[in-house]
Amino acid sequence: MFASSSTPDAPRTIPTRRPDRARHDRATVHAILDSDFVCHLGFVADGRPVVLPTLYARVGERLYLHGSTGSRPLRAAGRGLEVCVTVTTVQGIVLARSAMHHSLNYRSVVAHGTAHRVTDPEELQIAFDALLDQTVPGRSAGCRPPNAKERAATAVLRLDLDTVSAKIREGGVNDDPADADLPHWAGVVPVWRAIGSAVPDPALPHGTPLPDHLRRFVEDGGQRPR
Amino acid sequence: MFASSSTPDAPRTIPTRRPDRARHDRATVHAILDSDFVCHLGFVADGRPVVLPTLYARVGERLYLHGSTGSRPLRAAGRGLEVCVTVTTVQGIVLARSAMHHSLNYRSVVAHGTAHRVTDPEELQIAFDALLDQTVPGRSAGCRPPNAKERAATAVLRLDLDTVSAKIREGGVNDDPADADLPHWAGVVPVWRAIGSAVPDPALPHGTPLPDHLRRFVEDGGQRPR
Repeated sequence: MFASSSTPDAPRTIPTRRPDRARHDRATVHAILDSDFVCHLGFVADGRPVVLPTLYARVGERLYLHGSTGSRPLRAAGRGLEVCVTVTTVQGIVLARSAMHHSLNYRSVVAHGTAHRVTDPEELQIAFDALLDQTVPGRSAGCRPPNAKERAATAVLRLDLDTVSAKIREGGVNDDPADADLPHWAGVVPVWRAIGSAVPDPALPHGTPLPDHLRRFVEDGGQRPR
Repeated sequence: MFASSSTPDAPRTIPTRRPDRARHDRATVHAILDSDFVCHLGFVADGRPVVLPTLYARVGERLYLHGSTGSRPLRAAGRGLEVCVTVTTVQGIVLARSAMHHSLNYRSVVAHGTAHRVTDPEELQIAFDALLDQTVPGRSAGCRPPNAKERAATAVLRLDLDTVSAKIREGGVNDDPADADLPHWAGVVPVWRAIGSAVPDPALPHGTPLPDHLRRFVEDGGQRPR
């Protein structure tokens, strides 16, 4: 279950500063997770924090994380590794009349829990496919699947979405009334992740058409299907 | 100094998996940090990892971090808080013929160290200005500066760039030679952060022109000056 104020984990997922920005409903958490494919994965190594970017995929109430980031703790997570996974999508720069009220429009998800390395071959295949399809929907069916040796060489972690929260800042400028007449420009600059035309590998036979999954992805500007 | 294989901190900043992607020269680290404004800040609270997105700015060999993220440990960092700050810019989706060789083109920086809350009024002003100018160059001169009360209400952390490394993946597809003739599309989809036209606050007097710093920012597509 998701954390709420009645669960023991709540203090880790209830932001204290701007509770109005916190959302805990599952649909919001899923929508944010489904709109991106890069997370920042935090864990503790030798008592110190480590944060690494990596690919993730959501499958139901689980996250799969690409764990081959060069970090020994991740690769040795068989017995479980305490992690914090954070996904952040910036959607706008909020420029206020006062320095103090500058902000970002963004959507973020923070998930806490114990991640485990996936070893079951069937689950590993599900995770591999999901990681590909999270990045480009349909891609897992458009490439050669990993063979047994390749699967063994790749660490994939699973994190159940038990203790998770979302935070959203949206809308316009919130200047103090006393600043309303200051002679400074105020407003919002929209921000999004853009994608360009697909650049074929030089070794690809001339005239090879874009496969449907990739054509749709590029036409949709990299947005995931809703 | 930056970590290298001869410093005690090296194991934390030398990636073990793809050392060819690791860069430690200062210019590369600075260029990556200067091209973005959102970091993921990791720390340990009650023995567990926490990763929060926040704004940052680079000033010389220091990072300033906006610490008012609702987290008590950040606000109480007067005596020093062990952190890991990671900045990641995604630049492309690398689609290989094999699932295994799918990848991202990206540039990332990981900085470790002890962050301290900034309390000196002069340094706090420098940090405030830098945080605004990191997001939109020139913005600190285009709004009302924070007053004493506002400064006191905002936690800013400082992290010296002592133990820091960069990692870059760029270029095209690296399929195995045995997969060269597979009938799968391969190539790269470019990715970047795009910005749109500035949307004025409805309360702004009609016809208020965009200030120069913002006009340049929008015309440059949100890129920082080099």
